[in-house]
Parts: sequence; C-alpha cells; structure tokens
Amino acid sequence: MPDITAYTKRIAKPDEESIESARLLQDSLTKPPGSLGRLETISIKLAGIYRTPRPRIGRKVVFTMVSDHGVTAESVSAFPSKVTAQMVLNFAGGGAAINVLARFAGAEVKVVDMGVASDIKWPSCIINRKIAKGTRNMTRGPAMSKEEALRALDVGAQLASETIDTGVNAVAIGDMGIGNTTAASAITAVITGHPVRSVTGRGTGIDDFTLNAKVRAIEQAIKINSPNPKNGVDVLLKVGGFEIAGMAGVALEAASRGVPVFLDGFVSGSAALIARAICPDSSEYMIASHVSAEPGHKYALEYLKLDPILDLGMRLGEGTGAALAFMIAEASCKILNEMTTFECANVSRSHKEIRK
Amino acid sequence: MPDITAYTKRIAKPDEESIESARLLQDSLTKPPGSLGRLETISIKLAGIYRTPRPRIGRKVVFTMVSDHGVTAESVSAFPSKVTAQMVLNFAGGGAAINVLARFAGAEVKVVDMGVASDIKWPSCIINRKIAKGTRNMTRGPAMSKEEALRALDVGAQLASETIDTGVNAVAIGDMGIGNTTAASAITAVITGHPVRSVTGRGTGIDDFTLNAKVRAIEQAIKINSPNPKNGVDVLLKVGGFEIAGMAGVALEAASRGVPVFLDGFVSGSAALIARAICPDSSEYMIASHVSAEPGHKYALEYLKLDPILDLGMRLGEGTGAALAFMIAEASCKILNEMTTFECANVSRSHKEIRK
Repeated sequence: MPDITAYTKRIAKPDEESIESARLLQDSLTKPPGSLGRLETISIKLAGIYRTPRPRIGRKVVFTMVSDHGVTAESVSAFPSKVTAQMVLNFAGGGAAINVLARFAGAEVKVVDMGVASDIKWPSCIINRKIAKGTRNMTRGPAMSKEEALRALDVGAQLASETIDTGVNAVAIGDMGIGNTTAASAITAVITGHPVRSVTGRGTGIDDFTLNAKVRAIEQAIKINSPNPKNGVDVLLKVGGFEIAGMAGVALEAASRGVPVFLDGFVSGSAALIARAICPDSSEYMIASHVSAEPGHKYALEYLKLDPILDLGMRLGEGTGAALAFMIAEASCKILNEMTTFECANVSRSHKEIRK
Repeated sequence: MPDITAYTKRIAKPDEESIESARLLQDSLTKPPGSLGRLETISIKLAGIYRTPRPRIGRKVVFTMVSDHGVTAESVSAFPSKVTAQMVLNFAGGGAAINVLARFAGAEVKVVDMGVASDIKWPSCIINRKIAKGTRNMTRGPAMSKEEALRALDVGAQLASETIDTGVNAVAIGDMGIGNTTAASAITAVITGHPVRSVTGRGTGIDDFTLNAKVRAIEQAIKINSPNPKNGVDVLLKVGGFEIAGMAGVALEAASRGVPVFLDGFVSGSAALIARAICPDSSEYMIASHVSAEPGHKYALEYLKLDPILDLGMRLGEGTGAALAFMIAEASCKILNEMTTFECANVSRSHKEIRK
C-alpha cells in the first residue's frame, strides 16, 4: 500500500526566484504594467510552478475519472445510475463535451473507470482501474474501506506519473459519475465547515423535492460517519468517491513533479480539498479553471485560496472548464515568451516610469 | 459622402428560427440541459447571427485601429503621444500583445492608421487610412469635422466589407491611441448618461492628479460641444476619435453582412455605443468579449445589454480580450456541431425529461 503521507515531503514550494523574474519580465513588455490582468498573474504563477521565468505549456492531458455512487439509492440525482456507464461509451465514441473541447484545446483525454457499477467490457481506449462497482451508500456507513481509498489515490498518482513520464507538462482533472455532486457536497461541507444546505446544489438539474432528499442524505452521511476534517483520507473514505480519490491522487503526484493541475468544477474541487488536506502545499500547483454554477464550488475555491479564471455558468464536469482554461493559460505563457520589451521595440515608457 | 443612415435599413434582426433550432439542438446533446452555461447561450446567439442552427466560426480578423488625440494637450495620459506611432511599428514587427494573442487564436490582425500624428512611412503591412494627424483638442471645440467623422466611419465600413468579401466570417474591433480612453469616457458619459467621474478611469495607469485633469477635460469638452446623445455622428465628431469612428464603421458593416463583431474593451465599447446610436439593431451582432478593468466599461455593456464572456481584469485594448473570446466562441460552436445527441449515443435522459 502506498504511503500517501510521503507527499508532504515530496512537494516543494514553487520557485520564488522564477516568480520574481517573470514579474519583472511582464513589466518590461510593451504594454502598461498590469494591463493584461489575470493573463499576467497566471503566467507568473506558472513561472513558479515550472521554475523558469519563461513557462511553456506543452502536451496537455485531461483525466476524466468516472465512478458510481451507492448514495444514489437515496434518490439524489435527476439521472439514473446507468447513465454513468453509458457516458463511458460516449466518451469512447468521442462525442461527449469533454472530447469536443479537449480536441479544440489540443489536449488528450484519458478516461478512467475508477469504479463504474457495470460489467460492460470497455473499448481499449478506456483505462480500466475499477476499485469496486461503485461506492457503498454513505448514509449507512463509510463509502469505501481505507484500503480502497488508498488504492484509488494510488491509481491516480500512478496514472499521473506515467503520463508525466511521457512528456506531458499540464494535467487537468475532471469527473463523471451519477451522484457525485452529493459526495462532493459532503466533502466540501466537512472540510470548509460551511453548512450542508449552502454547499449543496442541483447537480444535473434536480427539483426541490430531490434537493431536500440530497441535503438530508448528506447530513445523515456526515452524522453517521463523523469524518475528521483534518484527515483527508478519512473524509475521502467516509463520504467520497473513487473518481474523487483518483483525481486527488493525480493532483498530489502532479504537484510533486512540478506540473500544474487544472481543476475543473465542483467535484474536482472536492478532490482538491482532499489533496490539500493530505498535503497543504499541493494547492500551490492548482489552477482554478472556472467557478461552477454549483453553489458549493465558490466556498471550496475560497478555502483553497484559488481565484477562478473563467465564470461561464458551467456545471457539467468531465474536465470541460479545464479544457477552456488550458487555452487561457497557454495564452498567458505566450505573452511572456513572445512579446517584445520596451527596449527592443523602441517604445517609450510612461512619464511615471521615466521619472523613476 | 456615404449615407450612414442607410444602415438602419440594411441591418436585419438575427434569425429567430435558427435561434430556436439551436436551442433545441443544445438540449438534445449528451449533457444535462443548460449545464454548459454561457457556452450554450453564445452558440445560440451565433446561430441567430449566422442564420443557421449549426454556426461555424471560420476565418477571423482583428481590426486594430490606431489614432492620436488632440486632448492629450491637457495632460490626460501616462504615456507621451509619440507612443502611438511607436506602437504602430511594434504591431508591424509582430511583438505587441495583440500579435501574440491573435496568432494563438488563429486570427489575422489588420492594423489601420486612422489618424496617427506622425509622418513615418509605415511598413506595407500597415493599412494607411489617415484622416488627419490626430483629432483636435475637444476641450476647445469638436474633435473633428462632420465630414471627417463620416469619412472615418466609411473607412471602417469599407475595410470590413472588403475583408468579409474574402471569406472572413468573424471580426473583432480593437484600438490603440494615447488619449483614447479620454474620448471613450466622454462618449460613454454622453450616451449612457452616467456622470463623467464614474465612467473615467486610469487608462494606461495615471495618478490621482492626472485623473482629476482627465475628468475636468472631459467635462469641459462636453460642456463646450453639447453633443446630442441621440445622434451617434454628433457625439462622435464632437468628443470621439478617428479610431473610434473606424471601429464603429466596422461594427455597422459587419452587422449588415450578418457577421458577428467581437468588441474588445472600453474604447471599442465606446465605438459600439456610437454604432448603436446610429443603428440600434447593430448591437444584436455584437459579442462582448470581456469586461475591462476601466470603470466605465461595465456601464457601456449594461447600456448595450451585452453580457461579457471574460472578466480577467484586462485593460490593454488592441483587441486582446477579443482574441481570447474568439476561442471561447469557437468552442461554443464546436459543442453544437460535434457533440452527439442522447438518441445517437444511447444515453438515458433525466427522470424529469422521461416523465415529460
């Protein structure tokens, strides 16, 4: 069994010197200082992560991790559980939203069965790492065993490691799994301390009746399991999911390898909360792609101290928001790498700078 | 002299039937209805503009229109006027922010000298349509003559027309010109009715002293010229600029040709206000790429009833925000064109939809 606590030793702080050099470089480019806003700050953050004042995003991979959730027995979703397996086949066919957006962004999608409740034999493009056929119903006890939680974290870490070994230098974590916003809400409530009601939303589009059932199920799951908010693995195993564990494993390994992790929406945000609880410095390597329409996501991002790049009212998951954010982050690096300086272009600086 | 009022007859409303078909198509794709947020609404708007339920963005052009402003005599900017001409050469060299971002977005940049106060002979890649060497100082009288305003509008319209004739189907309007946020603030105050103080910002980064001088100059210009807010050409000639006129001309012509116009920031937003004052339906063809850090921009977008796609704290102009928004809009079209439907993918719909 992997020693997940080793990550606290293996994840270094981003490089302050590269951050400072990138900041100076930004101010020397032919534009008023600060006038590219977030494009400047994102590039500076990536400079720290990549440990160079001229960061470049090269090959990109979106991990779309899929699993089922026993808590769907409590009627918490608008869609039946069988949709999880159907969507795996849809990903394999290339016709889901993440296929379209990743293709456009020039990213590869790796779809991972972390625990789909199905015996379907997947096409070879699907990575089968099934821990079990869905989690257990967390309103009755822990969603998974500790051994399963550690194994699922390790699957994510291993996949990230192998992927980074092939030269990929930016990863995104996305999710699919009917019922998984219920698990994400539980994690977000436990770790951020916000009330269940305020972090729980309509997921795929549930009505008031189902929303109430969802809130009750989460409250019951937290009551019966008493997860320890300071212990990421404890929260994960009691109220989490296999895809959430896989995403957290990707985040930890990528951080330890100096690779930025693009979070997607609410469910991947809950994986980020788990990763941060396991190793606080891991969040320094996270990029918040967007803020989801799910109400709990903004609380998760606040807790992670991450400022989202996009706010497009999206709430699909799969990694869709991260695919779009890849493009903005690449644009930010290109500014640092391709713009000319005031000196080179013979452009005069502002009166204020001249007075300095 | 062109008859600018003819645009009120030449600009049709977007096609409602295509809008409705695109909406239905979005709801049939394998995702919970509405879960892609703005990606869905942008694609639906583009369906209306292109008059097809399957809109496609093809070749894209950013018009970066450049001019000088007589009002810089009132010390309203952090940069000296000569920077305008220096930046034209920087655009020609390919090292400015818009060159970098347009290259990344796959868009061509057309840099147009609408009225740079310089005798430099530009490289051949710069389009010379100089109306005059900068506007006159609007605190002493109109910034330009009516004849100049109409000619500058026509330059923009002609360039858009020729460009669309070559097969380009999406255009963006961006600006460069020391002093032009002063003109943009004046236009925004006059047309939206908001006080000068609240629509006037720090542009390239001025201090409090210069900000006060800028506000006073704008108030004086409005007082001495009394522009008529209902008359776009009157506002333009009294407190506008040649690049603003050129951008308004592009917007009007593109709308009349059924081509979307991606606005950039505050200055192109003021051009949009002029275009809308000339022909109200023109704003139906406008896409608000982002909301600028300049305080007046949000009032302009409110007035135009446009919801910005991005909010990245940018305030550079040149078309930089629009280049980024091109990518999001293209992504939105690809969703409509490339995602599979529930039926095709054999994915079950939600309980609610099944019950319908």
